[in-house]
Amino acid sequence: MEFKLALIGFGVVGRGFTDILIRKRDYLQRKYGLKVKYVGICDIRYGSVINHAGIDQLRALEVVKSGGNLEKYFDGIKGLNAIEFIEHSNADVVVEATWTNLETGEPGLTHIKKALNAGKHVITTNKGPIALAFKELSSIARSKNVKLLFSGTVMSGTPSIRTLIRGLAGCYVSEIAGILNGTTNYILTKMEEGLSFNDALRDAQLRGYAEAEPSMDVDAWDPAAKIVILANIAFESDLKPKDVIREGIRNITLDHIKDAFRRGKRVKLIARAWSDGGSVKAKVTPEEVDINSFFGQVKGTVNAVMYRTDSLGDVYVIGRGAGGEEAGQAILADLIELVL
Amino acid sequence: MEFKLALIGFGVVGRGFTDILIRKRDYLQRKYGLKVKYVGICDIRYGSVINHAGIDQLRALEVVKSGGNLEKYFDGIKGLNAIEFIEHSNADVVVEATWTNLETGEPGLTHIKKALNAGKHVITTNKGPIALAFKELSSIARSKNVKLLFSGTVMSGTPSIRTLIRGLAGCYVSEIAGILNGTTNYILTKMEEGLSFNDALRDAQLRGYAEAEPSMDVDAWDPAAKIVILANIAFESDLKPKDVIREGIRNITLDHIKDAFRRGKRVKLIARAWSDGGSVKAKVTPEEVDINSFFGQVKGTVNAVMYRTDSLGDVYVIGRGAGGEEAGQAILADLIELVL
Repeated sequence: MEFKLALIGFGVVGRGFTDILIRKRDYLQRKYGLKVKYVGICDIRYGSVINHAGIDQLRALEVVKSGGNLEKYFDGIKGLNAIEFIEHSNADVVVEATWTNLETGEPGLTHIKKALNAGKHVITTNKGPIALAFKELSSIARSKNVKLLFSGTVMSGTPSIRTLIRGLAGCYVSEIAGILNGTTNYILTKMEEGLSFNDALRDAQLRGYAEAEPSMDVDAWDPAAKIVILANIAFESDLKPKDVIREGIRNITLDHIKDAFRRGKRVKLIARAWSDGGSVKAKVTPEEVDINSFFGQVKGTVNAVMYRTDSLGDVYVIGRGAGGEEAGQAILADLIELVL
Repeated sequence: MEFKLALIGFGVVGRGFTDILIRKRDYLQRKYGLKVKYVGICDIRYGSVINHAGIDQLRALEVVKSGGNLEKYFDGIKGLNAIEFIEHSNADVVVEATWTNLETGEPGLTHIKKALNAGKHVITTNKGPIALAFKELSSIARSKNVKLLFSGTVMSGTPSIRTLIRGLAGCYVSEIAGILNGTTNYILTKMEEGLSFNDALRDAQLRGYAEAEPSMDVDAWDPAAKIVILANIAFESDLKPKDVIREGIRNITLDHIKDAFRRGKRVKLIARAWSDGGSVKAKVTPEEVDINSFFGQVKGTVNAVMYRTDSLGDVYVIGRGAGGEEAGQAILADLIELVL
């Protein structure tokens, strides 16, 4: 099966995905019968090109790597904004990989609605629209008989969402808990080694794990969005990120971490959601967990999620939760789901 | 969607599955549009009945619980052996849940071939046929355009196989390692508490974790079959259980376990498979793992698997690996896959 794919957002994620597609072209065709033709790329920085005959993926990567603008190097319909781009695209699948906004979901939310309403499958790694409007978007997808896939929004390529939807299909889930933010887990790991919060944050920033403005991570907005996404799937609820009780790690002291360690505990930023009779609750707060536990062994930027189920007890999925290649892999797994 | 389902094997697994179906009838219909009608049950002990109008699931459970024979309590075509049963069944889906034989795969292997060739989807929890003949069986399923699903063969309902096939779709896997046998892990855990191998084995037998003849577990045949199943999926290989280098836990001494613990290690029975250039290798042997690791924290009857991948590094799935309800949940997740 050949998909005509349009990519909105050609940043780290879009390029990570493209890189994997190029590297695995033969493998994907042999194993899954999957072929992918890029019929458009639209990026606020690198320009916007539609070409129904196809856009060379490797050349697009090279153009952008050398700082060029796609509109200068490719033929086709150029200069459209993302909305016009979707309208004029003949793609079967739109990959939405723009930046995250947890207050409005924009611009991703509008892109996704537009693409679904145009009868295109949508794959996204953008947490904003899914955390804010999962119910509405799924309902549009159902009515248009297309798929909305978003496995990269939680734990990146590590299959947290697909495990919940497919791996645990049929289970009742009563609680979800997770270490869903690698940046804060890295900072807490470094603090255990003796660095102050500020030094550990600076270290994370130097390594590219934390942003210059680190509030999304250290104030727990990012894991709040992720636990909302998981909770709304598991509990068929309609939580929003602002409904999450949220306490970040700015006030965690070295003394607290050392004292906890002496008592056989580690301080972790735990995202938690549970169904309590009819109502669904969620919080992200620092918690002390036993060193001798799965969460206690989650170090550095690694992520983990636990689903508490009726038939299987506690099921854990653990792995990396961020990165361009990891997010690219999430998009690839979603794309393969369309042919499996 | 309503499935007409025929069940071969009405032991702990078949009954565990039936019990979940009864309990979740409304939920499954609402959430997945899934309805399941039993059109036949065939069991070497409890008799064989085909009834196209449907067999009451709760009544079947009650008959068997009170030691009765199904043929006495239900109308329909009775007394057929499993082969005839498949031939005369109008089922869309055959659930094969008979006992495991790792040398011949029988009788499950013949049942599965027969059902696939008759154009029926097959769901099985039987390790024998999948460990011995996955390639052949998948090829029959493909040619007949039906599904062969077997997620319960490894780690029971904990989604190890579905994670590999769908969660990690598109990844290259270079190595698989796992604690895939709960009985031996329970024995090793008890030995760490000071019990001798023989006492720990007896304890496991009293709790129903180990058989009177415990060789499948303690001599590592069971995890050998499981690592073969995972390896053949991941590496597209054709390993057999007898190809696995295999060393059980009979020779593990208390002294070894204590000495390892002093060095920060635990002794675990680790199943491992890896692709080494063109050739695929597998072994199940006792290994020392760091206490401070995910495998080091797997205690009692819990199972765990690690997939080493190109794009995601090491991905772990951890959870229960045995039990009637757990296996029933595996069958349910497979059934839901047919409608998702």
